[in-house]
Amino acid sequence: MTTRTVEQHAQHVAELLAPLHTRPGEEIPLGEALGRALAADVHSPVDLPLFRNSQMDGYAVDAASITTVPVMLPVRGVIAAGPAEPVTHLPGTAYRIMTGAPVPPGADAIVPVEDTVTSDGEVRIEKTRSAGEFVRERGSDVRAGTLLLAAGSLLAARHIAVLAAVGLQRVSVRPRPRVAVITTGAELVDAGSALRPGQIYDSNGIALASSARANGAEVVSIARSTDDPAEFRTLLAEAVLTADVVLTSGGVSMGDFEVVKETLSPLGAQFAHVAMQPGGPQGTAVVNGVPVLNFPGNPVSTLVSFEIFARPDIRRAAGLPPTEAVEGPLAAPLTSVRGKRQFLRARRTDTGVELVAGPGSHLVAAMAWADVLVDVPADVTALDAGQLVKVIPL
Amino acid sequence: MTTRTVEQHAQHVAELLAPLHTRPGEEIPLGEALGRALAADVHSPVDLPLFRNSQMDGYAVDAASITTVPVMLPVRGVIAAGPAEPVTHLPGTAYRIMTGAPVPPGADAIVPVEDTVTSDGEVRIEKTRSAGEFVRERGSDVRAGTLLLAAGSLLAARHIAVLAAVGLQRVSVRPRPRVAVITTGAELVDAGSALRPGQIYDSNGIALASSARANGAEVVSIARSTDDPAEFRTLLAEAVLTADVVLTSGGVSMGDFEVVKETLSPLGAQFAHVAMQPGGPQGTAVVNGVPVLNFPGNPVSTLVSFEIFARPDIRRAAGLPPTEAVEGPLAAPLTSVRGKRQFLRARRTDTGVELVAGPGSHLVAAMAWADVLVDVPADVTALDAGQLVKVIPL
Repeated sequence: MTTRTVEQHAQHVAELLAPLHTRPGEEIPLGEALGRALAADVHSPVDLPLFRNSQMDGYAVDAASITTVPVMLPVRGVIAAGPAEPVTHLPGTAYRIMTGAPVPPGADAIVPVEDTVTSDGEVRIEKTRSAGEFVRERGSDVRAGTLLLAAGSLLAARHIAVLAAVGLQRVSVRPRPRVAVITTGAELVDAGSALRPGQIYDSNGIALASSARANGAEVVSIARSTDDPAEFRTLLAEAVLTADVVLTSGGVSMGDFEVVKETLSPLGAQFAHVAMQPGGPQGTAVVNGVPVLNFPGNPVSTLVSFEIFARPDIRRAAGLPPTEAVEGPLAAPLTSVRGKRQFLRARRTDTGVELVAGPGSHLVAAMAWADVLVDVPADVTALDAGQLVKVIPL
Repeated sequence: MTTRTVEQHAQHVAELLAPLHTRPGEEIPLGEALGRALAADVHSPVDLPLFRNSQMDGYAVDAASITTVPVMLPVRGVIAAGPAEPVTHLPGTAYRIMTGAPVPPGADAIVPVEDTVTSDGEVRIEKTRSAGEFVRERGSDVRAGTLLLAAGSLLAARHIAVLAAVGLQRVSVRPRPRVAVITTGAELVDAGSALRPGQIYDSNGIALASSARANGAEVVSIARSTDDPAEFRTLLAEAVLTADVVLTSGGVSMGDFEVVKETLSPLGAQFAHVAMQPGGPQGTAVVNGVPVLNFPGNPVSTLVSFEIFARPDIRRAAGLPPTEAVEGPLAAPLTSVRGKRQFLRARRTDTGVELVAGPGSHLVAAMAWADVLVDVPADVTALDAGQLVKVIPL
């Protein structure tokens, strides 16, 4: 079996997953676009505001007619917000006008209702206003043709608001990568089943599916295979029909019943020992043009494999920003195995980065209690308390 | 109309929304629990590992039999991972064993396959091992009864993994607050419709719904009313049948056609002028026991009202952490209106907090371009470049 560094295997996986990044944008209803990334720039098809309108409830006037106050003006009518035949302002008169209603041509200021007294078809204006006051000019927010939101923008409520305001019903967003998950192992049973000796509950299926979803993927299927190659082959053939990438767990190690390795090796899969802990045994294949990543089956190995090898490209494909590694001081000294890059489970606390339990790849509860992976380079064998280490947020 | 500070109105809204926080937990399938908050502590129902098992593919031995190496041991059989009748180890013999398979009673160490040579029913062991090596003891990750995850934990993939590993099919999570949205205004039409003079596209419905969803709510309905009180009353009556809280936009100001105010005032609603910009006119009501928050209709006022008054309690009800305000230096001086707390749209840039366009509550594109609200206290009228201001992330 070939040996690779983490960087070499990550590079190899990135090449396999490259087709995820060239899928065309997907047109979806705006109401479903929250959290998605725009696939293309959006230019405004219209001016905003769409028309010159009132910022206040009050009276539309021409400022020249109210330079001396108080002044009485005849009220020619009411302009409500809503569809209506346009009217024209006559100097020396006023229209009662509501917020958002079109300001009639000829009027150039709004007197807020608080500064007026109405009586018998006339309004008494008590404060002067300059031309333009409380008038929202057409296009004063955005002009038709202006770049509204750039490709890649992650759509929050305020972005959806402006896309709706310019009248868009649908937007083109980065497609979610479609992920299929297949776990393997004769020992795996569903939660809720009675356990026979030697059996355990399958956690990798739901864990990989949740990891994929949390990073922007759509999970198209979750399946489980025994160690029977025919069964695994059938599940894989189904998975590649709908998935952009298939993730498997288990069956890639040194045992007698390595169903993934046995099935995929004849199909040109690569199985490598990657110089890392956890997650050493890794495989990759391409089946019917679909990349297949074969992670080891220990629950922690599976989750760490996802974080290191799958997460970056799945996030990028979905248009999500990368998860940036940060630095923190170790709360206590640690030792590491020479020649293997270690990803140790830890928590960030007030006293620094504290390891959670040991390095065992079966410690799935400890993994749950961690909030970072400490990334210890392969050539480091010991670190002191207080030394800065690279940590990968989970 | 009464006048309130932002703090007073926020306190009033918090009292109205208090029932959101006492709803019982909701039992959901684990596969749907990603991102949800646990409603109760979860203690492990089982030990993890469930049984003593092998960490390696190799040979199960008793360490006392391999103190001198190399040594040949007869191989009594193969223990695969998976359901099987338990076997017992005899000193001086070995079982071929796979990762995850039960270690037979009597055996206390695993010799990795790499350190062995097999021939004709015997295995040659080339390295000594201490008792316990590569054996995962039952309960060494977590013991039955141990607190696995505390109430309030936000479920990420690794949490779902451990919950699955201990055999849980369902978890009790904080229920999503059910939000209904009703926008009002005769001027509003659906995106895609032809616009008549005076009409605009409704953006508040989708904006409030997206804001609610982004903060953990389930949106049960989005409706739109004209300025006809009968229509609004009907929509409201429908909304309170399924919602925990109803959000409305528009119809609360000083105009002639304030449908929300007209409809709800006789029902004991409170309408207040809150000393803030944008978002001054605010209303609240309780209809059939369901709290109703009445936001003003300008798109920016609506969004800011949600952020200031609805977001904190909706997030808390869903079990999401509060959005913490942070501080940043102003990139340029600004002025503010005395007596009103201003929430100015701004971006955080390398040069500091930069305002995006002006304070107008119709500037919905500018709102989209912002990533924070600058929170300027009511008694502040001017701030210099470089002064630290409180900013609320959007």
